[in-house]
Amino acid sequence: MRGAVLYGPRDVRFEERDVPKIMKATDAIISISATCVCGSDLWPYRGINPVPCGIVEEVGSAVKSIKPGQFVIGSFFASDNTCPSCQIGYQSSCQHAEFIGTAQAPVLRVPLADGTLVATPTVPADDLIPSLLTLSDVMGTGWFAADAANVKPGSTVVVVGDGAVGLLAVVSAKQMGANRIIAMSRHDSRRKLAREFGATDIVTERGDEGVARIKELTNGIGADSVLECVGTQESMMQAISSTRKGGYVSYVGVPHGVELDGEKLFYAHVQLHGGPAPVRRYLPKLIELVWNRKINPGKVFDLTLPLDKVAEGYRAMDERRAIKTLLRP
Amino acid sequence: MRGAVLYGPRDVRFEERDVPKIMKATDAIISISATCVCGSDLWPYRGINPVPCGIVEEVGSAVKSIKPGQFVIGSFFASDNTCPSCQIGYQSSCQHAEFIGTAQAPVLRVPLADGTLVATPTVPADDLIPSLLTLSDVMGTGWFAADAANVKPGSTVVVVGDGAVGLLAVVSAKQMGANRIIAMSRHDSRRKLAREFGATDIVTERGDEGVARIKELTNGIGADSVLECVGTQESMMQAISSTRKGGYVSYVGVPHGVELDGEKLFYAHVQLHGGPAPVRRYLPKLIELVWNRKINPGKVFDLTLPLDKVAEGYRAMDERRAIKTLLRP
Repeated sequence: MRGAVLYGPRDVRFEERDVPKIMKATDAIISISATCVCGSDLWPYRGINPVPCGIVEEVGSAVKSIKPGQFVIGSFFASDNTCPSCQIGYQSSCQHAEFIGTAQAPVLRVPLADGTLVATPTVPADDLIPSLLTLSDVMGTGWFAADAANVKPGSTVVVVGDGAVGLLAVVSAKQMGANRIIAMSRHDSRRKLAREFGATDIVTERGDEGVARIKELTNGIGADSVLECVGTQESMMQAISSTRKGGYVSYVGVPHGVELDGEKLFYAHVQLHGGPAPVRRYLPKLIELVWNRKINPGKVFDLTLPLDKVAEGYRAMDERRAIKTLLRP
Repeated sequence: MRGAVLYGPRDVRFEERDVPKIMKATDAIISISATCVCGSDLWPYRGINPVPCGIVEEVGSAVKSIKPGQFVIGSFFASDNTCPSCQIGYQSSCQHAEFIGTAQAPVLRVPLADGTLVATPTVPADDLIPSLLTLSDVMGTGWFAADAANVKPGSTVVVVGDGAVGLLAVVSAKQMGANRIIAMSRHDSRRKLAREFGATDIVTERGDEGVARIKELTNGIGADSVLECVGTQESMMQAISSTRKGGYVSYVGVPHGVELDGEKLFYAHVQLHGGPAPVRRYLPKLIELVWNRKINPGKVFDLTLPLDKVAEGYRAMDERRAIKTLLRP
């Protein structure tokens, strides 16, 4: 079997790998229907991030709910779904969390299969696969961004960041009933998709000018919910400053070099929540939305490549020529 | 009229002051029944912090709800109670907020009287005055700490800090139905009061040892709600590390030199809220609780002095000989 391995920043190679096998009684082996490139600049330490989405080939002897032949979706992290963190909905902080695999390959071993995987009602139509693939990745993360920022019917929402997560945070805010969704974006194609997904306003300014523009659009008050989908100091401060008193800021990208000044945060008077998205919590709901064709998050894939062209997929995203790359085995 | 003026750190003087007069149509003049010393080390920049609590002497021509002869309670900050921040319950971020006065004196001018002051049902019995006095100050702040940390019936709560605010955060958590209240305290008299107020456990360790002890007491998970009532880097990190995944951390003391590392916060997976306590939001509820003798927050006053001994009141708190000093005109 051949698979992609990340050797270092911008060094992805496609090479011969052992075919994974059941190692523990709680494992499953799935053959991948499609996979994708994770925002590599955001998650450099994680190396390759295979997203499990495909047909179950084999399960370990202790696996009860997942069966061979099912189409299943997983998460970044394997989780047992029974520990206290999982029970409270934070499966991405599962006390027995494991990263899944070390390669993007046609066949994948998934630990803690019962806790990690959710099966679709039947094997999906091929055109649903890109959308289903996003659920355990950028769609689940965008949904967490909206949920963690308390988006409610009637909310005024700002989304900072126009990558795949930011765009799907727009989809999420729309589904949760937001009245107004302001997307901060300066790329034509992304702006267009943001509008299609439900953005009511686009702000192209950044930093202090971006904040001033948000204030203008919200009667000088700021937004109820601001979804920070970038992870830099500038985007974080822009998010906090764009929020009304008592409003909510979520952050879902690993912060890089972000330091929050305690006193500034104190007077900002906002509510802050974020972290690794517990996408497992949302899978049943999100599968239902895709299955019933209420949302079409697969539209963020604007480049499809065969799996052995994974290096080009990374480059296209790195150079912002593609929002998100789909890889087919 | 003689009043106390703060000239600098540890330099409080009692001297002749002009008697305040109505300056704007929205003002009220009140004669103070009692006042108190604010945790000066926490709020050095604010200088003197008079807490309005007393009898209305006179009101400006535009004041409608407040009448001479009423006993009223105010807030640190004057607020109009009509701007968008006030309407959403963040009166301490009122768009027209004003600090009240610059001296602790027998007579006080309160701006925005209708928005700021709340009258008690009748003139209170003298023994209720200490408790009523805390409402716009340490009790309102402790209540915000519990509210901002989402304390609910059945919650496991940790209170970091055993000053007056921390002790009254215990009272608040108890009122909100917390099942378990762990107070972090190493002072005998404060521990005793914490127990009396409803603390079920006392932790004397601090820093990493304190966190380890909290984890031990919570099956390794951490608490649902952690109320940070100090404002230092150590206490803030202790609070964040003592919270379960998805749990809540509130912070109500102005942070001094606190810097939060974005990546640590990300993996902590907590919800964070705090800022200047919007005590005005809680006054009606808290007045009712004191009036019906359901809570007795006035117990935090362990030193009562005449107003002209204000400097000694500051020293006693600074040297931690007193939890909180009550001043009588």
